[in-house]
Amino acid sequence: MNQALFLGGPARLRHPARLHSIALTYGTYDLFHIGHVRLFERIRQRYDRLVVAVSTDEFNAIKGKRSVVPFADRVAMIQACRHVDEVIAETDWDQKARDITAYGADALVMGSDWTGHFDEFRTLCDVVYLPRTEHVSSTELKTDIVSRALAPTPMAHPT
Amino acid sequence: MNQALFLGGPARLRHPARLHSIALTYGTYDLFHIGHVRLFERIRQRYDRLVVAVSTDEFNAIKGKRSVVPFADRVAMIQACRHVDEVIAETDWDQKARDITAYGADALVMGSDWTGHFDEFRTLCDVVYLPRTEHVSSTELKTDIVSRALAPTPMAHPT
Repeated sequence: MNQALFLGGPARLRHPARLHSIALTYGTYDLFHIGHVRLFERIRQRYDRLVVAVSTDEFNAIKGKRSVVPFADRVAMIQACRHVDEVIAETDWDQKARDITAYGADALVMGSDWTGHFDEFRTLCDVVYLPRTEHVSSTELKTDIVSRALAPTPMAHPT
Repeated sequence: MNQALFLGGPARLRHPARLHSIALTYGTYDLFHIGHVRLFERIRQRYDRLVVAVSTDEFNAIKGKRSVVPFADRVAMIQACRHVDEVIAETDWDQKARDITAYGADALVMGSDWTGHFDEFRTLCDVVYLPRTEHVSSTELKTDIVSRALAPTPMAHPT
């Protein structure tokens, strides 16, 4: 852990040459959906730069998760989002603390479904949980898709 | 149909005050995926502005299609894409010709899965079919999701 982060006491240190604020957020973003977009938009209303860390397929495997969309495509989707300034890979459990320090991040921001889960990082930066969009998640999308496939309703066209 | 479009003969007329080129594309964009993003990116490499028309839920119903994601969310997803300059609603079959005329569009650009389907508009503007990303479509994504749900594999986490 970078000692310099604590030299200033309770007030956060910001790199002296940097005038803009930086927020970090983390996720898999398997099916990129409106909930992600709205979260990114809300973060950018509060901070000047948003860095999004996307879990690699290998890290997800460690977590027992497997996404439908491969890592490279998930990254490209997030990179194409106009609210996002930079995309990085999340490869291990200890990365968040390293990233907060390396970026001099002002805040770690997550959806409110994660409330409390990242409070350990409050020693390093602000930890903010923003309201998530109701009734929208990759899991709910997948459930809708599966129920429709099993029901006698035609699926939408590829476009 | 706007007669002015034909006054110049085979060469396309462009609004005299307009120096940038405009492309139009159309779709439902039910599950927004990397194929859409790459198509938009390729279009913006060739034209200065990209206007994306998103089929309304009502228009899709007329076509016998029903998307998983509602119209407003599909529009918001496309609006958040950095390669897109403007999003409009597509509400009826005759709209393409009207849009081409109203925007003075230089090209109607579609994925190559639509090759030949829109050649009727060649009297109004260029009609370009760009290669689509292989093995990526909303339908293929849905098929993957359904097969995984029916197989004993854990689904990915909501984020």
